[in-house]
Amino acid sequence: MQLHQASWQEIDTYLKGSKGIIVPIGSTEQHGPNGLLGTDAICPEVIARHAGDQSGILIGPTFNVGQAQHHLGFSGTISLRPSTMIAALYDWSMSLARHGFERIYWFNGHGGNTATITAAFSEIYADWSYRRAGANTKPLRLQMRNWWELPGIGSLCASIFPVGEGSHATASEVSVTYYAYPDAQKNVAMSPKIAPTGPILDADDYRRRFPDGRIGSDPSQATPEHGRRIVEAAAKALIEDYKGFLAAE
Amino acid sequence: MQLHQASWQEIDTYLKGSKGIIVPIGSTEQHGPNGLLGTDAICPEVIARHAGDQSGILIGPTFNVGQAQHHLGFSGTISLRPSTMIAALYDWSMSLARHGFERIYWFNGHGGNTATITAAFSEIYADWSYRRAGANTKPLRLQMRNWWELPGIGSLCASIFPVGEGSHATASEVSVTYYAYPDAQKNVAMSPKIAPTGPILDADDYRRRFPDGRIGSDPSQATPEHGRRIVEAAAKALIEDYKGFLAAE
Amino acid sequence: MQLHQASWQEIDTYLKGSKGIIVPIGSTEQHGPNGLLGTDAICPEVIARHAGDQSGILIGPTFNVGQAQHHLGFSGTISLRPSTMIAALYDWSMSLARHGFERIYWFNGHGGNTATITAAFSEIYADWSYRRAGANTKPLRLQMRNWWELPGIGSLCASIFPVGEGSHATASEVSVTYYAYPDAQKNVAMSPKIAPTGPILDADDYRRRFPDGRIGSDPSQATPEHGRRIVEAAAKALIEDYKGFLAAE
Amino acid sequence: MQLHQASWQEIDTYLKGSKGIIVPIGSTEQHGPNGLLGTDAICPEVIARHAGDQSGILIGPTFNVGQAQHHLGFSGTISLRPSTMIAALYDWSMSLARHGFERIYWFNGHGGNTATITAAFSEIYADWSYRRAGANTKPLRLQMRNWWELPGIGSLCASIFPVGEGSHATASEVSVTYYAYPDAQKNVAMSPKIAPTGPILDADDYRRRFPDGRIGSDPSQATPEHGRRIVEAAAKALIEDYKGFLAAE
Amino acid sequence: MQLHQASWQEIDTYLKGSKGIIVPIGSTEQHGPNGLLGTDAICPEVIARHAGDQSGILIGPTFNVGQAQHHLGFSGTISLRPSTMIAALYDWSMSLARHGFERIYWFNGHGGNTATITAAFSEIYADWSYRRAGANTKPLRLQMRNWWELPGIGSLCASIFPVGEGSHATASEVSVTYYAYPDAQKNVAMSPKIAPTGPILDADDYRRRFPDGRIGSDPSQATPEHGRRIVEAAAKALIEDYKGFLAAE
Amino acid sequence: MQLHQASWQEIDTYLKGSKGIIVPIGSTEQHGPNGLLGTDAICPEVIARHAGDQSGILIGPTFNVGQAQHHLGFSGTISLRPSTMIAALYDWSMSLARHGFERIYWFNGHGGNTATITAAFSEIYADWSYRRAGANTKPLRLQMRNWWELPGIGSLCASIFPVGEGSHATASEVSVTYYAYPDAQKNVAMSPKIAPTGPILDADDYRRRFPDGRIGSDPSQATPEHGRRIVEAAAKALIEDYKGFLAAE
Repeated sequence: MQLHQASWQEIDTYLKGSKGIIVPIGSTEQHGPNGLLGTDAICPEVIARHAGDQSGILIGPTFNVGQAQHHLGFSGTISLRPSTMIAALYDWSMSLARHGFERIYWFNGHGGNTATITAAFSEIYADWSYRRAGANTKPLRLQMRNWWELPGIGSLCASIFPVGEGSHATASEVSVTYYAYPDAQKNVAMSPKIAPTGPILDADDYRRRFPDGRIGSDPSQATPEHGRRIVEAAAKALIEDYKGFLAAE
Repeated sequence: MQLHQASWQEIDTYLKGSKGIIVPIGSTEQHGPNGLLGTDAICPEVIARHAGDQSGILIGPTFNVGQAQHHLGFSGTISLRPSTMIAALYDWSMSLARHGFERIYWFNGHGGNTATITAAFSEIYADWSYRRAGANTKPLRLQMRNWWELPGIGSLCASIFPVGEGSHATASEVSVTYYAYPDAQKNVAMSPKIAPTGPILDADDYRRRFPDGRIGSDPSQATPEHGRRIVEAAAKALIEDYKGFLAAE
Repeated sequence: MQLHQASWQEIDTYLKGSKGIIVPIGSTEQHGPNGLLGTDAICPEVIARHAGDQSGILIGPTFNVGQAQHHLGFSGTISLRPSTMIAALYDWSMSLARHGFERIYWFNGHGGNTATITAAFSEIYADWSYRRAGANTKPLRLQMRNWWELPGIGSLCASIFPVGEGSHATASEVSVTYYAYPDAQKNVAMSPKIAPTGPILDADDYRRRFPDGRIGSDPSQATPEHGRRIVEAAAKALIEDYKGFLAAE
Repeated sequence: MQLHQASWQEIDTYLKGSKGIIVPIGSTEQHGPNGLLGTDAICPEVIARHAGDQSGILIGPTFNVGQAQHHLGFSGTISLRPSTMIAALYDWSMSLARHGFERIYWFNGHGGNTATITAAFSEIYADWSYRRAGANTKPLRLQMRNWWELPGIGSLCASIFPVGEGSHATASEVSVTYYAYPDAQKNVAMSPKIAPTGPILDADDYRRRFPDGRIGSDPSQATPEHGRRIVEAAAKALIEDYKGFLAAE
Repeated sequence: MQLHQASWQEIDTYLKGSKGIIVPIGSTEQHGPNGLLGTDAICPEVIARHAGDQSGILIGPTFNVGQAQHHLGFSGTISLRPSTMIAALYDWSMSLARHGFERIYWFNGHGGNTATITAAFSEIYADWSYRRAGANTKPLRLQMRNWWELPGIGSLCASIFPVGEGSHATASEVSVTYYAYPDAQKNVAMSPKIAPTGPILDADDYRRRFPDGRIGSDPSQATPEHGRRIVEAAAKALIEDYKGFLAAE
Repeated sequence: MQLHQASWQEIDTYLKGSKGIIVPIGSTEQHGPNGLLGTDAICPEVIARHAGDQSGILIGPTFNVGQAQHHLGFSGTISLRPSTMIAALYDWSMSLARHGFERIYWFNGHGGNTATITAAFSEIYADWSYRRAGANTKPLRLQMRNWWELPGIGSLCASIFPVGEGSHATASEVSVTYYAYPDAQKNVAMSPKIAPTGPILDADDYRRRFPDGRIGSDPSQATPEHGRRIVEAAAKALIEDYKGFLAAE
């Protein structure tokens, strides 16, 4: 069930049965020579919607521009500053809390988002924590999960791409986007075959270290079929992981 | 051409031919008994992508949560505060400016966004305006257009829905979303047939005045076929309007 | 009745009879070769005080520096960034709410303020809207009106200045300030007679398009007598419009 | 010379002879049973304009709402939060710097503003101070002066009101406003004759300590004639003090 | 009693007997040729801990980086912008209020902090002041005291250093740090013997006026023994002054 | 070498040989029944100073209040909101950059800080990343290291405390503080012997899950002697790790 395709009355009905929601969150940033700028938003969106279709879990709209300052040296990247992103996550969360949602599961597609999302959680919790005990409003419970860290998914990706999975513009994530948008496949030779690795600092430094944008990966291995396998496995794992989140004390 | 499905190198190539981009911007908010929560994001997205496919104009990712505080009394609505939205629009715009974009055309789907978008433009321009004349960086040029105000589109909608077009959860916008997502159509009887009208203040007040969320509309007239006509006409008008923006001195 | 010339006890007494107030809001910005930098603050101030004297309506202090980034290329202009202006309008409004004011009518003298004022209204309403229904504090009700859009005033100005009224440094607004401050009249020949028109972007761009600051106007037609007619008519219209605001459900 | 009554070209001409400006800054807050809510804005405004008329010094628009949180327990008070006020003073100052002003003399009418104005100066200076030495833009030089601390004015007020001058709603400041607006005089018996003194904390605490708003004063002594003497002496002292500021190395 | 060396349960016990706390607050900034960068943090910390050891008063952690933009021209200086410092003081204060502290005594070691601390107090009080009377949470009571302004301390310092005490990098404060950290003494000849005086503006200007960082002082007179006398007297005065603060109505 | 005990000229000299600095960063928060509120600030401070004494590396002042909203249910905890902490880290870093520091190594004592510190790094890098390539200022390089994650330290702590090391109020960190402040040792029986584990959300939730504040630990095993071993080993590891940071390309 997608929030964007539901009416408010359908959400009211949903809330009678569940106080939880999954919100895909990603980034708009370069993903190397054959990867899509939308990769990090597309991956959690596609997996989450697949899971939502199968389970009836409510899937929110995708938070599609995140923390990507280090990619700004490559055209098409769009980034929020962390302080802006914290403010936006605060507003999204408080909007959902207004309606009675109590547990929000942020399903993340971009490693560079994790620190800012976690900081935003503290910013949101702080709204309750600075008050004396006994406040009568129910605090939100927030969770973040990177799709590639769902149980079983890391090993699946490693088994499909034993060499050249990498850590940015990975063979897996490019596969997922090719599955989602087969017409967007790009046939680009990689040089070097496997990209270098190194630390992530500012945008100019990033471009010097990683001239075509990839880190440690050979995404020329990506195919829609690999992507299909990952999406299906990840959607299944997501449903289980989210159920655990809802059930957690 | 969609930015989310392009690689950074494709954007580099695009920038050699054009310094402009269209960015759909909408909202996530209730749209009455048979309207989708994503309506205001879906409409500009669908029209812009249609235009992009036909013309090769670059279409950015959709800014999908906007200024919707007045709809927070209805479940599923997600809103940014204006101050947050200004910060986010600033970051999006400055990211695009980094790459050499010089003209950004925000293609808007939500009347409640217009003041905040316009204020954000001033916040962005101010970055240049507070400096002494002679600064050597090229200022951005920003434009906002509501899709229903494109030349010819208002009259088209009025001709299709001579009665009950309304101003929120309009018959036209619901039609566009039904065309985009036919499976999401909802068959709900409207009572009263045509919704009341009135001023827009805070969320509780809004809910009292407009109990099912609509303002002045009878969206039960919406059909995918009406939507198709609007999308096709609006995409054509968008291309022309955007060309005018690019060409403007 | 002017707030600045009243004591707090007089305001207490006033509040027993009315929960409303008119606050003039303007800008400090160039107004062409013969216009005053204070024009946009002076016009609503003079009209509002005239109305206040005749009716007993409480007139607040003038918010005299607004959103004028585009005029910063001309000496004397002082501008707030939109984000600063929103914060200031929030504080002004919440101060008045503290005392029991429930309806604030912002009487505006500057078109460039309207987006930011409207965005500020949403920022203020959001304070109530993010809370669950049932909060026990009474939300403010906010209204903005441009003086030249009061019923009958646009046509009056057009009848006085059938040619060269323009849209910035208008013949009408300069007349109002000459009526208010006859000693400040400036005798400057206009060249060209009627100023050009065009879009408003950043400050340097503005100065290139509109070299002497005017847009579309010939303010050399301005006289104190014309100003007097406008002030008297506008004050009368303001009283009626404000009464409608107070009475509105 | 008043900025609000000048044209931008007149300011250009002024800047050829001087890079300095005086900006009156005050507050909108209760001033006891017979004092005006605008007292702290009116006093520096009236004195500064008097000085400007005599000397040709440029007088900016009055910053008329300041830091008055402690007076919010009394109707009519309007306050900025310190963080808002710092942002506004930053924008005012940077606007003036844009035009080539190099020295801004803030002429203050409210003791409660002094800390925030001083903090704002540091915020503004910080814009230059965080940069490496050698930046090629010329930093602003900022000065604040309370009108009652101008040379000779404290002793003048003490000589006119040897008893009951007080520290809020003083006999002197009420006199200045009565001189400026004789029709606004209020005949109210003071009880007790001289108000209590004490610390200033939040608004509720203030109201408990100072039930009618005064601190230490008996403003029933105020007369327009006393006000005239103060204004004339203060205007003269202001001109000298400002000249010293302009001349200071 | 030092908060940093106490357990939370010990603080609970303390709160049963007292709702007050002393928090040292300083700066990290150049203090001339023989002064320590930590001087302004060390002085209040050492005096407060001495007082805490003798009296059982709770001493909070030291707020050790303050408002020092004007010293940024000298290596090692670390400064907060005033707006950042206000936010931090707000968070510290609200954290303490959460636990039931009602009176916070900020014991200050840096004159450049006083305006920003005072502005922060207003920002904090404003949290209560904008609300209608009758809010049921107890407002904080905040106090700032510069250590050199404690009763008797100014005259003590003047008697020890009748010449060359100065106003920055004073002989007294350097003595206090030498008493605290005798190994950090620096033997540097002063040239000129007594430093110049002048106004404080931005960092580059400061460095031009005060080439070695001192203002008006000859800190080569500093000794640990002088420091000991000052610390002991100031600790005694602090205990008395703080008791007065706690007892004040 | 401690920045707080150095003069600005000594820092100038240091900068001729090195552009790097270590800054301890911690938190002020409950650490269970026998742990000190200052634990997370004391640990990195003590280790860093030990390393600085042995190596001549410059050690900055300790950032002693961090992100601890989840501990606010226990008396004595002081927390910054993440947005405040990001602003403060920005100001500290930009101050150091002003003097020519190019690499800042934040030596962290609190797991709850890591997300916010990492987000702050992105906020700081963004200052360079949003600019076009070719900006001529040298970007900072920032590193964070948790002391317990230094090479060899995790295994050392595990060997000393094979049972009950835990994750908050650990036996190791309490030992370090007891070594630093032996007089602050607290003899408290733990009940249960080993504390529970669980997720970290807001403050009230934390207190319900972890009634005495510990997570998974038995800190009654802590001794000064264990602390000494950890400090000495960690200081040695810190020097090596920091050297690697300075040398890293």
